[in-house]
Amino acid sequence: MNKSTKDIVVVGSVAFDDIETIKGKKDRLLGGSGTYFSLAASLFTKVHLIGIVGDDFNEEHIDMFHSKSISTNHLVQESGKTFSWGGKYSDDFNQRDTLFTDLGVFEHFAPKIDSQQFVQPILFLANIQPSLQMDVINQMSEPSLIIMDTMNLWIDNNLDELFQVIRKVDILLINDEEAVDLTGIDDIYKAGLSLLEEGPKYIIIKKGSEGSLIVSNEDNISIPAIPNIDVFDPTGAGDSFAGGFLGYLASQRFNIVDAVLHGTAIASYTVSGFGIEGIEKIELNDIKKRIKLLNDLIEEL
Amino acid sequence: MNKSTKDIVVVGSVAFDDIETIKGKKDRLLGGSGTYFSLAASLFTKVHLIGIVGDDFNEEHIDMFHSKSISTNHLVQESGKTFSWGGKYSDDFNQRDTLFTDLGVFEHFAPKIDSQQFVQPILFLANIQPSLQMDVINQMSEPSLIIMDTMNLWIDNNLDELFQVIRKVDILLINDEEAVDLTGIDDIYKAGLSLLEEGPKYIIIKKGSEGSLIVSNEDNISIPAIPNIDVFDPTGAGDSFAGGFLGYLASQRFNIVDAVLHGTAIASYTVSGFGIEGIEKIELNDIKKRIKLLNDLIEEL
Repeated sequence: MNKSTKDIVVVGSVAFDDIETIKGKKDRLLGGSGTYFSLAASLFTKVHLIGIVGDDFNEEHIDMFHSKSISTNHLVQESGKTFSWGGKYSDDFNQRDTLFTDLGVFEHFAPKIDSQQFVQPILFLANIQPSLQMDVINQMSEPSLIIMDTMNLWIDNNLDELFQVIRKVDILLINDEEAVDLTGIDDIYKAGLSLLEEGPKYIIIKKGSEGSLIVSNEDNISIPAIPNIDVFDPTGAGDSFAGGFLGYLASQRFNIVDAVLHGTAIASYTVSGFGIEGIEKIELNDIKKRIKLLNDLIEEL
Repeated sequence: MNKSTKDIVVVGSVAFDDIETIKGKKDRLLGGSGTYFSLAASLFTKVHLIGIVGDDFNEEHIDMFHSKSISTNHLVQESGKTFSWGGKYSDDFNQRDTLFTDLGVFEHFAPKIDSQQFVQPILFLANIQPSLQMDVINQMSEPSLIIMDTMNLWIDNNLDELFQVIRKVDILLINDEEAVDLTGIDDIYKAGLSLLEEGPKYIIIKKGSEGSLIVSNEDNISIPAIPNIDVFDPTGAGDSFAGGFLGYLASQRFNIVDAVLHGTAIASYTVSGFGIEGIEKIELNDIKKRIKLLNDLIEEL
């Protein structure tokens, strides 16, 4: 029985971003997929950030992670420059031009993980090279769940390695355009079904301001985005989506109260007849009505 | 990742009951802890009933189990009489006199379990002898959860064996009076805490028409009973409570939709500022408001 919150291990980039949008221009913002993911997931559970930074990375940045209970034990600092990136968004935010990419110390990033530190963690592989993602999977002992993201760069250049990783994961998060590129299928729902066949139990297709689509063998569910958001900077939206998604899953506990409510409702039917006649004919809907009654009673207390 | 409904294996009695209450008198009712439990749990998941019946057990009873998708592959039929029991309840249902007990074939019940048939099932040990409960635990390979019930007879006569079983289980279901008898502690909350120290993660104390109390290291929660029930026959209330409780737990799936809603809500904060400023300060309460908004949107669709 596992009832407690799980830790999350994330491997991703930590970077300095120069960003220009219709709302303004800011330089040297702390960013990177690992950063955005960790911040979001840390709302729910303990996060261990695996990554690399240069000697231009300040104590104040480390302190920010620690203030969120994000472990930086696996965030290596090496001499050289932290990964930096510059981008400019179109006025409608639908296009993004990369102005520069300076990999810095990230170019030779080769994570070394002491997997003994983690007990059946949830592992998130942000959109780094597939070979690094695989390397991390191989170093982890018994993750309880593996989730990955990816990006066009690897679809274009490392397709075989990318599919090898996809076959190892439980959940694939991917943008709508990437899902189409990756499968060659224009319909994103069908693209999702085709990716399901590679092994993941869920394909979650992110559609930006149009929400997301969950594709699985049981259900296909569309989730809207929050409407009327005044966007300043879309950077990190996907990574923080992943962090919120996984943080929530990691914090899900054994729902003992709901279970007791179900037992209570059923027992109330049992005693309403002789022998089994009180429960022989009931259906889940009958039970749900009585559970609602119980919840109302509990709220009154 | 385990997202699918788990099977439940229950070992308990299958019996014919003669029951007299203020509402009437009925003979040869199909009963027994295994029967009540299975019927309740079968609302949620596949149930495998381990038990024994005599040659007076009819095809129609077997058919009733099968109509509920309850497997009787482990319900052995032997020559002799099915366990039968007669009881009479006081007019307020608070007292029960046993009029007769005829163990029949149950007297020499020694379950043989082919544990290969079950994949990480949930195991429920109804209120049979502790030695039989232990025997079943030892025959099961890798149950994902073990839950037990017990009764005064074993507290009075088999205390050491009973504690050995309690130390092996994840959840103990017990009546309020039994909890007091078992621990010698009058306060049922304190009795529950004392039983927690034996190993179970949860002690669920059933208080009949007064509901139940969940005792754990994290929370202690009182759950009311359904009020104003016109009681005909309290027999099986506790066993069907256990069946509803465990059936619900077994059917709990990976809540992917809620997880996506959390990711969506957090991403909406991320894009509302440059870099990480949009998510650096948010709290779970902020997210919950946006999730409510998303749920309202989904309902409108």
